[in-house]
Amino acid sequence: MLTIKPRIEACFSPREFHQYEKGFELIVVIDVLRATSAICTAIEYGVKGIIPVDSVEEAREYLDKGYIAAAEREGEIVKGFTMGNSPLSYMSPDLIGQTIVLTTTNGTKAIKMAQHKETVVIGSLNNLDSLTEWLINQERNTLILASGWKDKFNLEDTICAGGLIDGVLKSGNFDSDEDSSVAAKFIFKSAKENIFSYLKASSHRRRLRKLNLNADVNYCLTPNNLTAIPILKNGILVPLKHVEKAVES
Amino acid sequence: MLTIKPRIEACFSPREFHQYEKGFELIVVIDVLRATSAICTAIEYGVKGIIPVDSVEEAREYLDKGYIAAAEREGEIVKGFTMGNSPLSYMSPDLIGQTIVLTTTNGTKAIKMAQHKETVVIGSLNNLDSLTEWLINQERNTLILASGWKDKFNLEDTICAGGLIDGVLKSGNFDSDEDSSVAAKFIFKSAKENIFSYLKASSHRRRLRKLNLNADVNYCLTPNNLTAIPILKNGILVPLKHVEKAVES
Repeated sequence: MLTIKPRIEACFSPREFHQYEKGFELIVVIDVLRATSAICTAIEYGVKGIIPVDSVEEAREYLDKGYIAAAEREGEIVKGFTMGNSPLSYMSPDLIGQTIVLTTTNGTKAIKMAQHKETVVIGSLNNLDSLTEWLINQERNTLILASGWKDKFNLEDTICAGGLIDGVLKSGNFDSDEDSSVAAKFIFKSAKENIFSYLKASSHRRRLRKLNLNADVNYCLTPNNLTAIPILKNGILVPLKHVEKAVES
Repeated sequence: MLTIKPRIEACFSPREFHQYEKGFELIVVIDVLRATSAICTAIEYGVKGIIPVDSVEEAREYLDKGYIAAAEREGEIVKGFTMGNSPLSYMSPDLIGQTIVLTTTNGTKAIKMAQHKETVVIGSLNNLDSLTEWLINQERNTLILASGWKDKFNLEDTICAGGLIDGVLKSGNFDSDEDSSVAAKFIFKSAKENIFSYLKASSHRRRLRKLNLNADVNYCLTPNNLTAIPILKNGILVPLKHVEKAVES
């Protein structure tokens, strides 16, 4: 008997999403430096929900209405906002139970691009194992959308995508078909022993080093310091476990 | 004294070209399986010129006017044509001194996309060393445009791009800045000892195997069996050495 296994594939940038998305209703969005690392951190540390928005203007409107809003462009906090996408800033006890509006250069754009799909979850190196295990249990066609940097390929998202693909394929219950998935898995396997050193040539790490964000980079490149999986429900990123509990009850 | 070196970078698909092209007037177009391997072979074996065209319709118009015309789509020769993009078919003595019109799924599209640039040359694994040496001598910002497969990333073009980048950087007179270039170089270094085996998982190789094109694949994946460098002049791909001789005289 020939059984067709679900596929897990990687798409390297939002610009290529439409070439890959057909047949995939489960999308994992990744922006390791730093949007999705920040979102996973926020959800793990008790933030109630994150509303991703495309533009700084939209975030500003929410701010004016009294929302907590965060905005990052080009690696820096946008003028007029007090938060950007530093994961460390999302650990504050003041944010527990709060809803936060967020716009970033690449990550929130990728999330918005995928929002018409049945299921959109958020991945990072921080929640790698937890997300891998969950994806294996779903047994669904899964497309990993790397946010890249301004529609360009980037190394850190590719490593993370490769880590998810490598882990999910090890279950024996999935296949990969795309060259991008083969390359991502290969790059992850070469990088995994020392991701920080592997990325020393990465353009984004150089960009963040200039902005004195090495503590953020160290944090974002640390696999499995979190277990939370954020999921998009009605336009808001919320903890997956709450959604699953609601379905069970 | 700080000297700024010229850059050599890789762009993984025509869809991303506009994200990368700024500041580059020297473009290397690659479509290893099989358009650019075929073009390099044709020029090496004495074809006078190749006219790349976008559509099958355009190629058919040339055919009707009495031109030799070749057309490939989805890996196969288009109905009504006698040639596609098999490199082996371009070695025929009947083609010496002839001009051939060519349209292919990915390669000719990438060439047309780059044609507004000052210099467009054609790369493949077949002419890797010869092209590397020439690029080093140009000392110009160089962008390698991989044709990919229908705007998707592919492994064989990435290996070839990585080979060019690795070779050119070894001169010590160039820099690379993009993550795509770092990844391409890394993938080339891992693959170079046995490209054929490395590509066993590649989607395009599987596609061509189904079409019984293993001889073509073996040929295209053999580095340095050619030295010709095709260059685009007035919309026609001609031997670079003829152009350089004309400039000298």
